[in-house]
Amino acid sequence: MIRTINKPYLLFLGDIQGDPNAKTAFGLRDWCPQDCLAQLRLPGCTVDLGLQELCPGEAAAAGAKSMVIAVAPIGGALSPHWVPHLLRALEAGLDLVSGLHDRLNSIPALSEASARLGRALHDVRHPEGAFAVATGRKRSGKRLLTVGTDCALGKKYTALALAAALQAKDIKADFRATGQTGILIAGSGIPLDAIVADFIAGAAESISPDNDVTHWDIIEGQGSLFHPAYAGVTLALVHGSQPDALVMCHDPTRKHINGYPNYPLPDLKTAVRRYLEAAYLTNPNAKFVGVSLNTSHLSSADRARELERVEDALGLPCFDPLKQGIEAVIARLSEFA
Amino acid sequence: MIRTINKPYLLFLGDIQGDPNAKTAFGLRDWCPQDCLAQLRLPGCTVDLGLQELCPGEAAAAGAKSMVIAVAPIGGALSPHWVPHLLRALEAGLDLVSGLHDRLNSIPALSEASARLGRALHDVRHPEGAFAVATGRKRSGKRLLTVGTDCALGKKYTALALAAALQAKDIKADFRATGQTGILIAGSGIPLDAIVADFIAGAAESISPDNDVTHWDIIEGQGSLFHPAYAGVTLALVHGSQPDALVMCHDPTRKHINGYPNYPLPDLKTAVRRYLEAAYLTNPNAKFVGVSLNTSHLSSADRARELERVEDALGLPCFDPLKQGIEAVIARLSEFA
Repeated sequence: MIRTINKPYLLFLGDIQGDPNAKTAFGLRDWCPQDCLAQLRLPGCTVDLGLQELCPGEAAAAGAKSMVIAVAPIGGALSPHWVPHLLRALEAGLDLVSGLHDRLNSIPALSEASARLGRALHDVRHPEGAFAVATGRKRSGKRLLTVGTDCALGKKYTALALAAALQAKDIKADFRATGQTGILIAGSGIPLDAIVADFIAGAAESISPDNDVTHWDIIEGQGSLFHPAYAGVTLALVHGSQPDALVMCHDPTRKHINGYPNYPLPDLKTAVRRYLEAAYLTNPNAKFVGVSLNTSHLSSADRARELERVEDALGLPCFDPLKQGIEAVIARLSEFA
Repeated sequence: MIRTINKPYLLFLGDIQGDPNAKTAFGLRDWCPQDCLAQLRLPGCTVDLGLQELCPGEAAAAGAKSMVIAVAPIGGALSPHWVPHLLRALEAGLDLVSGLHDRLNSIPALSEASARLGRALHDVRHPEGAFAVATGRKRSGKRLLTVGTDCALGKKYTALALAAALQAKDIKADFRATGQTGILIAGSGIPLDAIVADFIAGAAESISPDNDVTHWDIIEGQGSLFHPAYAGVTLALVHGSQPDALVMCHDPTRKHINGYPNYPLPDLKTAVRRYLEAAYLTNPNAKFVGVSLNTSHLSSADRARELERVEDALGLPCFDPLKQGIEAVIARLSEFA
């Protein structure tokens, strides 16, 4: 089942210290600013998103629908001294949303208050409800999936940038989230890495249901076909997505799978070939429409050189979604019947 | 965690009617006859495994350690009128083992009695404990994985036959189970299709831990790389198994993925190429050592012709594990350093 979260958000930062622990909050502020109404910080918090400060009651009065625990504390656990603030949010009429390992429902005070007040508790790390086995049936509408040579090199940001660029041209498009931060940004989605094995491809199918023939679903990729731990999830997502278009995401400065020094990254031509081979099972017309390079570690001269080099080598538009070049990919998408 | 089940078994058939509903029981009788001490049938049961009839007390006195619910009733649910018989087994000192969807622990009377008596309740369809993310680290010892063009065409039987043939030659070998019937036969294993996505390859790694360099783990394959619902699980199993040797399993009379008429079976050469490509990620020395054909639907003349045709086409020993030809594959395994 695809979870739906009510927006806009009050972003709860607790007493977190250090911007890296608030990565999710910054991602939300950057990718769905219209949904981020305010921030709530406790004494000792050193992070500032630059949003207005509102308490839960003020936020609810201003139209907020959910308070998001948008931080990753050390250990991933919910601090007990945050609970009174979470209860105040429920009392004020807000739903609660968490990306932590601990389930909100496992805290009796929250579970009791949410039931009594009729508020929702969303644990976006954990899937909601049951999923069906994949059918392999071809669905209507168009789909683009971002794939990568490794984890954590820009598949979500590339998908978000492509969806935004299509929408800016008045082309009907939706970003489809498959991971927890993506789900918070989109307000819906499925945390694919938490689905039981037999139902992963089925869950992936349910993320992009039948749609208008001119509509694009831009699906957030996960993992990598070249990852010794996660390739199975990636393959199930490729099969369930039935992508018409694929965008390869790559970090030119990365030499091996992150955390796996004995697993070198594939060259881009091999990666393109292997992803197409996988995609053909459920969509024989799948093709690549571009390469998204994460050039955040390159100088602007090196970036331009690298984008040109990859573009020449693969014969595909090559872009950095945060810097330049996305228009050429959008142009390719307009060529799909 | 790998579950371990105490043997030998008393096989509980309930009041089941029709041999197909007792497929698991027949599999156990055929593949681990030394572990099947007796059967227990209720009035109305029309299935007969040809084993001695013992009540739980008699079976325990004769050395039985577990009673296995070895049947698949319509709907997969446990019949309430079986519960008193299951309680008698616990009282008699036997553990209980079930392959049904319903968990034994979800029945209060069984959960209470097992806790009071110190007996184990094994639900082999559900994994036990937590699994780690795959490391991709090369393990010692040798591994063979059976893979297939589809589900349900002989991967388990092929692995069992290979393990038995190696053991008959005094070569150290273990059958490693990845599905519920295999787990009952082996007395241990992991139900791979029930593992959470992020941990499938990690669970597959834990099935065949470090071992003597001359030892063979013969790992039961799952699904197919060409299956629109299960290919992800298959890929994770290929990666986690790190197979030195692969055996392709195929049914020459099958034209499409079972239940998916729009998904034709791959030709065997393509299947071999794609499985090797997948296996190379975690073991660049992986190779095929044989093709196992399920010829149960062929006449003996057609069988011989088909085995020869595939052997010539692929240049690999071709056998039917239930009929003929396994020696040529065992000979190939002796060539591994």
